[in-house]
Amino acid sequence: MVPLLPGKLVFKVDMLVEHTDVPPGMTYRQAARKAVAMCVSDFASKGARPDSFMISLGLRRGTTRRQVDDIAHGLRDAVGTWGVHLVGGDTNEAEELVIDCAMIGFAKRLVPREGASPGDILVVTGPFGYPPSGLKMLMAGARAEAKFGRVAKSSVLEPSPSLEVGLALAPYLTSAMDSSDGLARSLHTLARESKVGFEVTLVPMGAGVQDFASSNGLDPLQLVFDGGEEYVIVGTVKKAKLRTAKEAAQKAGGRLLEIGTATSDEGRVELNNKGKVSPIADAGWTHLAGR
Amino acid sequence: MVPLLPGKLVFKVDMLVEHTDVPPGMTYRQAARKAVAMCVSDFASKGARPDSFMISLGLRRGTTRRQVDDIAHGLRDAVGTWGVHLVGGDTNEAEELVIDCAMIGFAKRLVPREGASPGDILVVTGPFGYPPSGLKMLMAGARAEAKFGRVAKSSVLEPSPSLEVGLALAPYLTSAMDSSDGLARSLHTLARESKVGFEVTLVPMGAGVQDFASSNGLDPLQLVFDGGEEYVIVGTVKKAKLRTAKEAAQKAGGRLLEIGTATSDEGRVELNNKGKVSPIADAGWTHLAGR
Repeated sequence: MVPLLPGKLVFKVDMLVEHTDVPPGMTYRQAARKAVAMCVSDFASKGARPDSFMISLGLRRGTTRRQVDDIAHGLRDAVGTWGVHLVGGDTNEAEELVIDCAMIGFAKRLVPREGASPGDILVVTGPFGYPPSGLKMLMAGARAEAKFGRVAKSSVLEPSPSLEVGLALAPYLTSAMDSSDGLARSLHTLARESKVGFEVTLVPMGAGVQDFASSNGLDPLQLVFDGGEEYVIVGTVKKAKLRTAKEAAQKAGGRLLEIGTATSDEGRVELNNKGKVSPIADAGWTHLAGR
Repeated sequence: MVPLLPGKLVFKVDMLVEHTDVPPGMTYRQAARKAVAMCVSDFASKGARPDSFMISLGLRRGTTRRQVDDIAHGLRDAVGTWGVHLVGGDTNEAEELVIDCAMIGFAKRLVPREGASPGDILVVTGPFGYPPSGLKMLMAGARAEAKFGRVAKSSVLEPSPSLEVGLALAPYLTSAMDSSDGLARSLHTLARESKVGFEVTLVPMGAGVQDFASSNGLDPLQLVFDGGEEYVIVGTVKKAKLRTAKEAAQKAGGRLLEIGTATSDEGRVELNNKGKVSPIADAGWTHLAGR
């Protein structure tokens, strides 16, 4: 039982499934932590403070005691990182590892997906491209300079949605969502739901992504826009609130990058690279369709 | 977002996994309804009114549109049967069908598992043995007389935990739990948690279970005590409250059967069949261990 806190109750589920969500190199501990991170990320982008969660586990027959302990460690990691309480769960036998996180929390107001207006500033809480680069390393043998490689792989194995930044920003966001299916998908979703377009004038590319792409024959823009597993908040703020929002993000230990503007061209999402305009396709991860 | 109702918040997850929870003959529609029934059953036994639920789906690649529609129908069946609200979910690709139900609700007081005292009357809200018989028919080719067969199979395919009976009884129960892992398991769990024993003096055998067992070479007591998938509430009431509790159950459309007494023989669960005393083993369904 969970004590009722002020505000409205928020309720969310997110299921991690081994063969799509657990890349090679990810431990059970990391997988368990990630299952919770997926929920936390959504709470952060909506400005809701998570309170408690439950875990439904599907375990392969033959799962060792040690693997079960690893899962417990991963859940404790999450509890420690985001200050949420694990209040129960259910354990089952399954053909592959399944970790479903059900999370509840409270919010005075949820940041909507449909609140952007033309003229709003498009913002993100961090650079993109690390997780897709890390996935290319873990799954396709891409090589990277040591430090970049560590950052990229860790962004996949130990995703760190910034809950405090999300909560601090929420009062200033007219619309927002996380980017777990990629930046392009988030932009198109916000555009569609808010009935606006977006002109992106700054590519929020992580340091080293360009070099990593070049040396592995990859398209750096694809790594930035079309990847998944990103845990950055994508949103909009009124121009007049931008400075306050930036200060709020910094005070919470994060940052806020302006990357463009909402337009009245409904559904049109494009990149304006110093005057050269090109459409940003609605690419990203869709379950049951593949990439 | 869910409006806050009076009382305390109750939160529960239950995962249905195809290869253990979906017997041959169960449709996707029935599987989806069952996933919700599993949660409702627990709420009913604890006297908590469920308000809302979310569903995380793991779907095999190749799942048809029709199967997805069937799942949606099953969820609607559950919404209609128990008056709960489906408020969201998550869809994924998985190696087998996985339906995880996360449910929240409200209660003034939860009926505990540890509240039984020696002298309390042991009660159940219905007879046992239909689901294990139905499973023997669906999975092992057991044969039955037509009407019994329909009842037994339907108890597996469309389990019907009685939410209203559970809510009506809750104020009178000193301890309770559902019997999804079988009657024997419930008795041992309540005994362990309440630090009591149970003397069972009436075997709550469903009509026709004896004949079904005989004609299929099965042990009728095993069908009653050691099966799983039962959705009957097992609990205890003070002797002085028994009559009121029975009336409450009847008023809610159900019934309450006295089957024995709680004793001070901690952990000892036995059947006293007209003076012939035999232990009831802690049998039942344990995940990852098999039967």
